[in-house]
Amino acid sequence: MSLVRVHNFSISLDGFGTGEGQQLDAPFGHAGSRLMQWAVGTRTFREMGLPGEGAGSRGVDDAFAGSWGSGIGVEIMGRNKFGPQRGAWEDEEWKGWWGDDPVFHTPVVVLTHHPRPVLEMDGGTTFHFVDADPVSALEQARALAGGLDVRIGGGVATVRQFLEADLIDYLHVVLVPIVLGRGERLWDGLEGLEQRFDIEATPSPSGVLHLVLTRPTDRVMPTA
Amino acid sequence: MSLVRVHNFSISLDGFGTGEGQQLDAPFGHAGSRLMQWAVGTRTFREMGLPGEGAGSRGVDDAFAGSWGSGIGVEIMGRNKFGPQRGAWEDEEWKGWWGDDPVFHTPVVVLTHHPRPVLEMDGGTTFHFVDADPVSALEQARALAGGLDVRIGGGVATVRQFLEADLIDYLHVVLVPIVLGRGERLWDGLEGLEQRFDIEATPSPSGVLHLVLTRPTDRVMPTA
Repeated sequence: MSLVRVHNFSISLDGFGTGEGQQLDAPFGHAGSRLMQWAVGTRTFREMGLPGEGAGSRGVDDAFAGSWGSGIGVEIMGRNKFGPQRGAWEDEEWKGWWGDDPVFHTPVVVLTHHPRPVLEMDGGTTFHFVDADPVSALEQARALAGGLDVRIGGGVATVRQFLEADLIDYLHVVLVPIVLGRGERLWDGLEGLEQRFDIEATPSPSGVLHLVLTRPTDRVMPTA
Repeated sequence: MSLVRVHNFSISLDGFGTGEGQQLDAPFGHAGSRLMQWAVGTRTFREMGLPGEGAGSRGVDDAFAGSWGSGIGVEIMGRNKFGPQRGAWEDEEWKGWWGDDPVFHTPVVVLTHHPRPVLEMDGGTTFHFVDADPVSALEQARALAGGLDVRIGGGVATVRQFLEADLIDYLHVVLVPIVLGRGERLWDGLEGLEQRFDIEATPSPSGVLHLVLTRPTDRVMPTA
């Protein structure tokens, strides 16, 4: 069975995956760019076309950032990650934040209570607008993934819903040493989560900390 | 000036320094012993007389645990750390959790709205019951410290109050990879705290993560 993975999901020391007051020119609210600063400096993100000087770092931050796409056949994202509109689509001209040739290069399932037609972009990205609970959304995503893994792309509420439904096999969280004070918390309602995962922590010279939560698999001993 | 330090202060991934439902036989509420498990296995804690087998570990957990007492002249603790009673002292026979010869071996200032006489214990520990705000409590504690450093011993509310008042110079937080879901949060109300500290993270093979927040000092360049 293909895995369900979360990558490069940044939270503050106090557990917020986004700040308060999200809007068009501030997708992370009062957090500004601070939660993703570690990633912007990596080679991987530079090659995605993000602004910055030089070729980007190749250390542990880049190693994590770069494993984002490998073996992924589809992404599932929440409506709020796709764009700033809420409610019914008043403007179907909005095609996401990522330009004509989005970085995904796979099908992307956008969770929304307001379906609209499939949107085909350049470079292999297609947006599918789906009104479904996590289990059913995952089923629909897998049907588009060609046997590859499924990435849950966020935002906070979407990741939390898939964690609550115990659908995530791999969760890469980046702990950023800032105290945001307000916003949306990742861990809320997930008491005892650690019992379902092995957890490994790796600090980066950039100051962030990479946490990897993986679902233990039954290890079959080889027979003699 | 002597420093104000916090040591071995454990929190869950979701930021709780204690669980819900604290009582006499469960000082950390539903968290049980999970927040302090990393410390119980160290040589330092074994030598304090805590139960356990063997001589205890000597790795990074012990290095941190052991710096708890060095250079400390006084501890300040909240009433709730001293004991389970609340309100006026109905039972002055209660002399803390630590037996006749407590582990502190220094004066200890207990913050309470209900003062009682100084309590002299064996081994140099004296409990001073003081009704004061953080600034004034610190002043009284320093007067007892003989020029040495001041340790803020907890619990959560006490550490948070001293952080809010910007009185802490060194904060050692141990991030324990569990999601408690409920209890008392350390970081609440401390938005922007990182601007006042340098932050360093060190993972331990035991699975916990040591975070050290130190107040940057002005570094005077030597004159030529």
